[in-house]
Amino acid sequence: MKRFPAAAVRRFTASVFEHAGLPAPDAQLVAERMVDADVSGADGHGIIRVPQYVRRLKAGGYNPRPNIQVQLSGESTALVDGDNGMGHLVMTRAANTAIELAARTGASWVGIRNSNHAGPGAVYATMPLAHDMIGIYCAVASANHMAPWGGRERLLGTNPIAFAIPAGEEPPVVLDMATSIVSFGTVKKYAVQGKSMPADWILDDNGQPITDATKAGHGLLLPAGGYKGSGLAIVLGLLAGALNGALFGGDVIDFNADDVSVTNTGHAMCALEVRRFMPPEQFKKLVDGHIREIRESERLPGVEAIYVPGEQRQARIRERTAHGIPIPDNLVAQLNELAEDLGAELLAQV
Amino acid sequence: MKRFPAAAVRRFTASVFEHAGLPAPDAQLVAERMVDADVSGADGHGIIRVPQYVRRLKAGGYNPRPNIQVQLSGESTALVDGDNGMGHLVMTRAANTAIELAARTGASWVGIRNSNHAGPGAVYATMPLAHDMIGIYCAVASANHMAPWGGRERLLGTNPIAFAIPAGEEPPVVLDMATSIVSFGTVKKYAVQGKSMPADWILDDNGQPITDATKAGHGLLLPAGGYKGSGLAIVLGLLAGALNGALFGGDVIDFNADDVSVTNTGHAMCALEVRRFMPPEQFKKLVDGHIREIRESERLPGVEAIYVPGEQRQARIRERTAHGIPIPDNLVAQLNELAEDLGAELLAQV
Repeated sequence: MKRFPAAAVRRFTASVFEHAGLPAPDAQLVAERMVDADVSGADGHGIIRVPQYVRRLKAGGYNPRPNIQVQLSGESTALVDGDNGMGHLVMTRAANTAIELAARTGASWVGIRNSNHAGPGAVYATMPLAHDMIGIYCAVASANHMAPWGGRERLLGTNPIAFAIPAGEEPPVVLDMATSIVSFGTVKKYAVQGKSMPADWILDDNGQPITDATKAGHGLLLPAGGYKGSGLAIVLGLLAGALNGALFGGDVIDFNADDVSVTNTGHAMCALEVRRFMPPEQFKKLVDGHIREIRESERLPGVEAIYVPGEQRQARIRERTAHGIPIPDNLVAQLNELAEDLGAELLAQV
Repeated sequence: MKRFPAAAVRRFTASVFEHAGLPAPDAQLVAERMVDADVSGADGHGIIRVPQYVRRLKAGGYNPRPNIQVQLSGESTALVDGDNGMGHLVMTRAANTAIELAARTGASWVGIRNSNHAGPGAVYATMPLAHDMIGIYCAVASANHMAPWGGRERLLGTNPIAFAIPAGEEPPVVLDMATSIVSFGTVKKYAVQGKSMPADWILDDNGQPITDATKAGHGLLLPAGGYKGSGLAIVLGLLAGALNGALFGGDVIDFNADDVSVTNTGHAMCALEVRRFMPPEQFKKLVDGHIREIRESERLPGVEAIYVPGEQRQARIRERTAHGIPIPDNLVAQLNELAEDLGAELLAQV
């Protein structure tokens, strides 16, 4: 596994998307958001997705030149129609709109429809931080892997919610969680390592636990906290999906299996200006204090460290910014083959 | 267990609080919110709390004549200082403020400090529904029963979050969840029934599961979904507590054990106007459709029914509005003894 500087990965990714048909500034923006994911350690949502996105672009599943419309429907609200553009473009526009509105009125809520998979929620939830704002993001996931609690029909995605809260000297508090107890990414890791899974992760269609990770296949992911995670997935689906005229429930298109159909993905984004409640410097000191209190608190036997949400993410950002993004050799080969086909710049170590 | 009409319970509760020192309109309002809890089935947060609240009033732990201040800090934001009044008064004022602001700008966020225990979050989250708005409520719980994930210090409450989303013919979608895997109320039921608890509910100070519910005593409640529930409790504590200058973390006063100290309880409330995103009638039809799709979906073997969050709550409201609130005989006796001491009206069956 070699490492590549973030700037090189950004340049490579932008070149690929430009050669795949996106206008240069859009290709640049998509590359920035995707590399934001890789730099922060969300490898499953970063450039590993390039081949899938390019496949969808070629298949006509994306609009490569979307006319993204921002309808300001209230002093604090907007409805963004992504015109089936890449989710990264649509969500960047939406997050910036949420920030602008909150700067005027203190709090904003932006609903998004006709978007697509946009990577990890933390990428967007953290955008308000630089403005001394709190960010909250939620989405309808791009495939249904869960059933409602007690059910066995795949009507729910692992609909995620992400929060970002500014701190002072400490890393910002960033919680980015799917509503399932575990992600398929983790299941794949268990399969590779030959580890057996806990019985409350995945069920087969008869409600029997699947503990052999290699057989997880099309099992039902269980929600985090039982009926609570199921309830959250429903509520987030209504807020990010139904409210904005985006898909939710049985209508959701499986983005991984279908490269052609319009997904009409929905998201929602809320920004909240700290200064409307407390001077930002004072708030950040308070947050630092809470982070330290938690981190330094007594641990249960066998626990090596207590992490506040966002702490490990920040450590990864620091480490990868300094030393580059590690990319498995087979992924580098796959990406370069794709780039060659498109006539794009190759990903080369510096 | 006899039943009492909601109106009679309201009259009784108002009389008690008036005789305990609250101005008549405030006593009336507190009674309304408390009976809202009982009518909706949140028995642990309704009139069962009257003795504790009266004890705190007598001990000087509440300000019986608070000057609740609403500082409009932005077109969409407000900071409410409850002046240590009863939480029901403070939160009612805050929820109404959130509704007023959202009616003007589409979305609002109200932070609350110097409040107190206010009963179940759903009571406040559902207030915007009548205005075709979505409500979101969160709070710092009034005692710390959880540790951060991996820890054993009680730095976290079961900080709850509640969402309410309007529907048409179907009950509104109402999710009101603590961030712990289970509540102490449920643990007490297990103790009474002599049932043993699952190993992932409560730990002793050495990290060993307590499965005998009668020994749960001062055990550590585990968060829902492991690190996810812990992360949510931290984020909600920062949003509802720290941001508003309310207590969170090690400073939280145990409201159940201490009748005197000012709790400086924090909450947050967000209201969102549906019409800024979609005509309300159209949205409610969509929500109805999603509710029915989930309710009628295929069940796992052994599951009798799939409930959408809020469905069982609405059934209880309907049933108790028609037939009265069931109150255990020993609670009736305790409440009437208290009323007699105060010279208040007694709770009598009609």
